[in-house]
Amino acid sequence: MDALRQDEALVKALRRARPDDDIAEVAARVAWNVLVEPGDAVAGALIAELGAEEALRFAFADDGGSLAYQRRSRALRDALGRWRPRASVDAVRSAVTDAEHVAATLLLPGDGLWPESLDDLGHHAPTMLWVRGDAAVLTASPRASIVGARASSTYGELLASEFAGDLAASGVVIVSGGAYGIDGAAHRAALGVGGATVALLAGGVDRAYPQGHQELLGAIARSGAVVSEVPCGTAPSKWRFLSRNRLIAALGQATVVIEAGWRSGSLNTAGHAASLGRPLGAVPGPVTSAASAGCHRLLREYDARCVTTTAEIRELWGEPVRDQSANVTDPELTRLLDALPTRSRASTQELARRSGLAPDKVTALLGLLEVESVVDRRDDGWRRISTRDRG
Amino acid sequence: MDALRQDEALVKALRRARPDDDIAEVAARVAWNVLVEPGDAVAGALIAELGAEEALRFAFADDGGSLAYQRRSRALRDALGRWRPRASVDAVRSAVTDAEHVAATLLLPGDGLWPESLDDLGHHAPTMLWVRGDAAVLTASPRASIVGARASSTYGELLASEFAGDLAASGVVIVSGGAYGIDGAAHRAALGVGGATVALLAGGVDRAYPQGHQELLGAIARSGAVVSEVPCGTAPSKWRFLSRNRLIAALGQATVVIEAGWRSGSLNTAGHAASLGRPLGAVPGPVTSAASAGCHRLLREYDARCVTTTAEIRELWGEPVRDQSANVTDPELTRLLDALPTRSRASTQELARRSGLAPDKVTALLGLLEVESVVDRRDDGWRRISTRDRG
Repeated sequence: MDALRQDEALVKALRRARPDDDIAEVAARVAWNVLVEPGDAVAGALIAELGAEEALRFAFADDGGSLAYQRRSRALRDALGRWRPRASVDAVRSAVTDAEHVAATLLLPGDGLWPESLDDLGHHAPTMLWVRGDAAVLTASPRASIVGARASSTYGELLASEFAGDLAASGVVIVSGGAYGIDGAAHRAALGVGGATVALLAGGVDRAYPQGHQELLGAIARSGAVVSEVPCGTAPSKWRFLSRNRLIAALGQATVVIEAGWRSGSLNTAGHAASLGRPLGAVPGPVTSAASAGCHRLLREYDARCVTTTAEIRELWGEPVRDQSANVTDPELTRLLDALPTRSRASTQELARRSGLAPDKVTALLGLLEVESVVDRRDDGWRRISTRDRG
Repeated sequence: MDALRQDEALVKALRRARPDDDIAEVAARVAWNVLVEPGDAVAGALIAELGAEEALRFAFADDGGSLAYQRRSRALRDALGRWRPRASVDAVRSAVTDAEHVAATLLLPGDGLWPESLDDLGHHAPTMLWVRGDAAVLTASPRASIVGARASSTYGELLASEFAGDLAASGVVIVSGGAYGIDGAAHRAALGVGGATVALLAGGVDRAYPQGHQELLGAIARSGAVVSEVPCGTAPSKWRFLSRNRLIAALGQATVVIEAGWRSGSLNTAGHAASLGRPLGAVPGPVTSAASAGCHRLLREYDARCVTTTAEIRELWGEPVRDQSANVTDPELTRLLDALPTRSRASTQELARRSGLAPDKVTALLGLLEVESVVDRRDDGWRRISTRDRG
């Protein structure tokens, strides 16, 4: 902690980044961000208990109190083993100055724009976020996470475009992972309708990953936000992709998987959404398409909700869907309509025999149908006027 | 009842049909079958209480006891109103002789081959069945009901063929409704592999409905069974289609809907299956296909199980599915693998820094990976041998 405060370049950079803040606390947050891999619950618990600055002092003090604590807690002793190789003032300074070079801002827990939905991750919540663009979109509402396969089909890309475009056009923030395939289609559709979108990256926000999405990520940063929990310069890795997925699940008020292979990373995002209690939707597709196999698995194994329209996606976070299911059949009416001829005529008695209904019931129903101009009566009997679909 | 026993032609026809049985009881069963529309619960309850013969005597007696009962029971009084217009010895005789002309047999509750699964319908169970073909297939097991849209797509027909063919080839009886589209594809696939299939018709078994399925229904009758609960000569009507659907749902040990429009009759079958507690499967399809809209509705509103393979269909009636979901990730191993270079080499200390793991943890994991030949060690450090898919 003292080493951080004595680094003049670091202190200056932090003052430029957070002119109104207690520099020691901000430095400690960045230090934790550099020290730990995403989702380190021991660090999360220690920071929650002591605050970032005091937690750092405690973890790296050589005094007896800390040793006593370590003896008490095997998890903490193990954690110190993995944090110590990364303790470096240079790394903390680079994190801050590299962010400055790409105009990335530091977003800390407790900031007005900090997305509180991430706090649902408990001690696995990120120690801080690095944001290129407008951090305000992280707390705008509603927010839908739309994710899926990189190896998407035309079917999946069209649906991602349609759903994300529809939602974004009506003010829904589209959260995704910036990848090829479904993610890219969702981001692009949101940008295309002038909507807001957030790309959560597995590596630093200074790195375009994938490289081919450099322009797309630039466009997202200009009108939405490109966000990461790891400092600039950090390469995306399998672990960081998996960790990043929990942020996508936690940031969205619902997660929708458009297409996903049988072992797709999107299932990992979906699993996080489910374990966070976030509504989870999966879009079905042809069972003959490998790109939909993961979605069907979500329907079968994760209790995901089957979603096929934008309205059904909105329903995930509680917007009511117009009920299209009113299809009540009156059995007796159906039987009488079945029995009514359209070209010849039949008496009430004949209709009773054909329909298996009592004559007085037939008379009563015919009265109703006559009012609605469905049947007409003459002396030689009843006839049905309009025809309806049979079967 | 007396009028029935005095009709010589009827008695003779019944003796030919059921040489070993009490003719009065059989005559009464057929009489009830002619009197009521499918699913008449008042008739069902009365027959369950008194037996077919006594119930008939009771319902049509003009004595005080019956009148007293009628006063007590409004439902029975109403029922008599709808039964009486149909009371006709001619109709009962025609039912028996028409069946004889198409070699249809009478199957009565209590017969050895009576499918007891229909008894789950309670008082809505059929009063009897008319069977062309081999009634034994109705009690063979397992039985899967495979139904769907008449306006099916190539996608749906291919799946119906594949699923029904696979299942029938391994001894599953395929139950369906004999209609165009999915039903026809399922029946044909079962016949194609030499399997057993049952067509449950809404009209009499002497009528090919639809007309274009005359040959198909003939083939089903030759190797399986064509079945109806209404007597020969009865036209299919909307009411009878809806009623027939409950038999499809009750006869199968599980019901699978392959394709269905938003208001398809298959949803009615599915609803019956669900209310009978039978497992219900729905095959997903493109959300852009109207022919799959009903299946998606079943997934959303009826809690149907998403089924995409024959194995998943078998699982509906309890056959275990091979678990393909073992995909456990050891987070620490993932992080170490992420950190290991493939072209250069790294020291244990360097790997600890990169992975965010403690050096002794890195050493332990490297030892395991060395045994599995995933890494190799030299004096200048560690290297990963095999490459794996990233992200």
